[in-house]
Amino acid sequence: MRQITGGITAVSGILAAGINCGIKSQNKDLALVVSRKPATVAAMFTTNEAKAAPVQLCQQRLAAGLAQAVIINSGNANAGTGAKGMADGRRMAELTAKGLGIDPGLVWVASTGIIGAPLPMDKIAAGIQGLIPQLDSSGGEAAAEAILTTDTRPKQLAVKLSLEAGEVILGGMAKGAGMIRPKLATMLCFLATDAKIEPAHLQSALKLAVEQSFNLITIDGDTSTNDMVMLLATGEGVTLDPGGRDWEAFEEGLMYLTRELAYQLVWDAEGATKLIRVQVAQGRDKEQARRVAFAIADSNLVKCAFFGQHLNWGRILAAAGYAEAGIDPRRLDIYIGGVKLVEGGAKSAGADEAQAQAELARREITVRLTLGQGNSTVEVLTCDFSADYVKINAHYQT
Amino acid sequence: MRQITGGITAVSGILAAGINCGIKSQNKDLALVVSRKPATVAAMFTTNEAKAAPVQLCQQRLAAGLAQAVIINSGNANAGTGAKGMADGRRMAELTAKGLGIDPGLVWVASTGIIGAPLPMDKIAAGIQGLIPQLDSSGGEAAAEAILTTDTRPKQLAVKLSLEAGEVILGGMAKGAGMIRPKLATMLCFLATDAKIEPAHLQSALKLAVEQSFNLITIDGDTSTNDMVMLLATGEGVTLDPGGRDWEAFEEGLMYLTRELAYQLVWDAEGATKLIRVQVAQGRDKEQARRVAFAIADSNLVKCAFFGQHLNWGRILAAAGYAEAGIDPRRLDIYIGGVKLVEGGAKSAGADEAQAQAELARREITVRLTLGQGNSTVEVLTCDFSADYVKINAHYQT
Repeated sequence: MRQITGGITAVSGILAAGINCGIKSQNKDLALVVSRKPATVAAMFTTNEAKAAPVQLCQQRLAAGLAQAVIINSGNANAGTGAKGMADGRRMAELTAKGLGIDPGLVWVASTGIIGAPLPMDKIAAGIQGLIPQLDSSGGEAAAEAILTTDTRPKQLAVKLSLEAGEVILGGMAKGAGMIRPKLATMLCFLATDAKIEPAHLQSALKLAVEQSFNLITIDGDTSTNDMVMLLATGEGVTLDPGGRDWEAFEEGLMYLTRELAYQLVWDAEGATKLIRVQVAQGRDKEQARRVAFAIADSNLVKCAFFGQHLNWGRILAAAGYAEAGIDPRRLDIYIGGVKLVEGGAKSAGADEAQAQAELARREITVRLTLGQGNSTVEVLTCDFSADYVKINAHYQT
Repeated sequence: MRQITGGITAVSGILAAGINCGIKSQNKDLALVVSRKPATVAAMFTTNEAKAAPVQLCQQRLAAGLAQAVIINSGNANAGTGAKGMADGRRMAELTAKGLGIDPGLVWVASTGIIGAPLPMDKIAAGIQGLIPQLDSSGGEAAAEAILTTDTRPKQLAVKLSLEAGEVILGGMAKGAGMIRPKLATMLCFLATDAKIEPAHLQSALKLAVEQSFNLITIDGDTSTNDMVMLLATGEGVTLDPGGRDWEAFEEGLMYLTRELAYQLVWDAEGATKLIRVQVAQGRDKEQARRVAFAIADSNLVKCAFFGQHLNWGRILAAAGYAEAGIDPRRLDIYIGGVKLVEGGAKSAGADEAQAQAELARREITVRLTLGQGNSTVEVLTCDFSADYVKINAHYQT
């Protein structure tokens, strides 16, 4: 596996475009991704019970197992919009289908931005007209820009796998920034591969990858109404299935792609100055390790301490304690970087505090807890918590 | 019931004192509360699995049902301190018992402040010597000051109940400020009454009151290692029990006292500029209403929006949706103050947004959700989330 330039349009058969259609006063806000032929599709959606209209629409479409395009707007989430929101979402799909000359049932819809405002359908209708002529096999970057909200930079990636059956390309783009605490799926992410894969197999590979990537990050503990991860397999390349020798390598490639995009999301979190890897090892089981890791990664107090570069392991201990995970503090060790600060739940006598303090000055910091109760390990990515997060979110209308 | 001046020492038979013993460079940091005679005792403790040494010690002492004194220090939590922490906690009790000439088993211990540092036992030992001569029936205020950490003001209250059996006094003090998301019990709170009540009955009344007060507030979603609520019944006054006609009035008085102290805690939350009442009504059951209310009250995004005075009901809808409480967005209405902003999960057509915006400028704001699924109601108190919270917690060593 090696990384190649580009994002979703690095996959042969995928075209994309991104423009400003006037939802936002500046910057691109409307993106379109199209497969030359109907592709098999897999997807995961937010577990939020107040699902946005486009999420409900795509959930209905998933059963067919085939999709050919996705139209995406930023600046307006089309969430909390009731029956009108559903009608607007369907209309976005219909207008796109008409412009492309394909079946509306093959067009997916995604939205991200302000909750509760109706979509400006006149602008979107005109935008779709302007967008289709710009579809291009190098349009991935423009599309990646058009799906952003408070993100500061586009997030995209592509990799090439050299399998026994031949070469396979995997590419994708994502947006994040805030309201990120995935449960089963997360934020907007669009992925594609040129491999030919049955929908059920594509879905199982996507689920595995998402659980090991987007479901292991948290920015602010808020799970959005609009989260969605979509994976298209255009079928222009080699055929893959779980029975074949290449399947595991494909799964690994997909996991690499989703993990790297998740990593990019956390780095571009609202107000973040540091990326924190919370590793929990020696868990009784995965669930215990996951609970402890998320309690720490979601703790405002822990994250403020990292922002302030304070060697405040007491807050980490407290968060592990309230995770309701059945830890035994007397078996708990805590490391910052390579320095063991806590041994058996209390301050380690020989800890090199100066070195630990130096670790805190880094931009990327690893916190490691060993629970002493088993062999399960989890790593959750999060960021620090700065005064800028509050400023951004006191004034931005999500 | 009427409010009277003073706090815990408004209860006859209770003496208290507070001094600076040098744990903190300035301000009082050591408090002592003593009952003239052994009192029946009830208590609730943090559910954090990494319980501080004093919490473990008091849990052991609770079984006896009797207590006569509690020695409390601020500035150091005696948490994450291992076997030495337990020994130090026991020594605090022993030194206090010796000075008072009573059984060490009747002395409780509480600590709050930095996690992970050993207690400065020389300062505490000298402090206890200095504290005992200052015990006084008007010492409640000094004690209330000595238990504070980042709190900006002491929190105390007393009420007088006129019951059929005679008058009963209830008084208490509390400290809070940060690391507050109670589960079963919370922060430090010391209460007393002059009624004569059996330990089991006292415990049931305390549990009821705490569930309706401290367990319905959240400041930052972090549950501390040191939370404790202690209630002494000196028995100098009238005898009360659940079979009697006065019991319900006593329970109401205790609930009033704990709710008022909880209210004071939220008002003095780190960095808070507003108090938010999150009311959830028409829940299928209490648990559903509680989950929805806490998801909103703990949401950083919701709390930032209140700080910024943004009419951002989309974040409230999103939080209700990820509460995993089985809501039906199509039945959900959201009010700010008296203004119905959301009806059936979408923007209410006739909403008076100008009035809702004016509500946001108030210091105390009520958010009300009706779920349309039943008759259960819960009110959770929280505060807004300001850049000052981050500043305080980036630089304070909890």
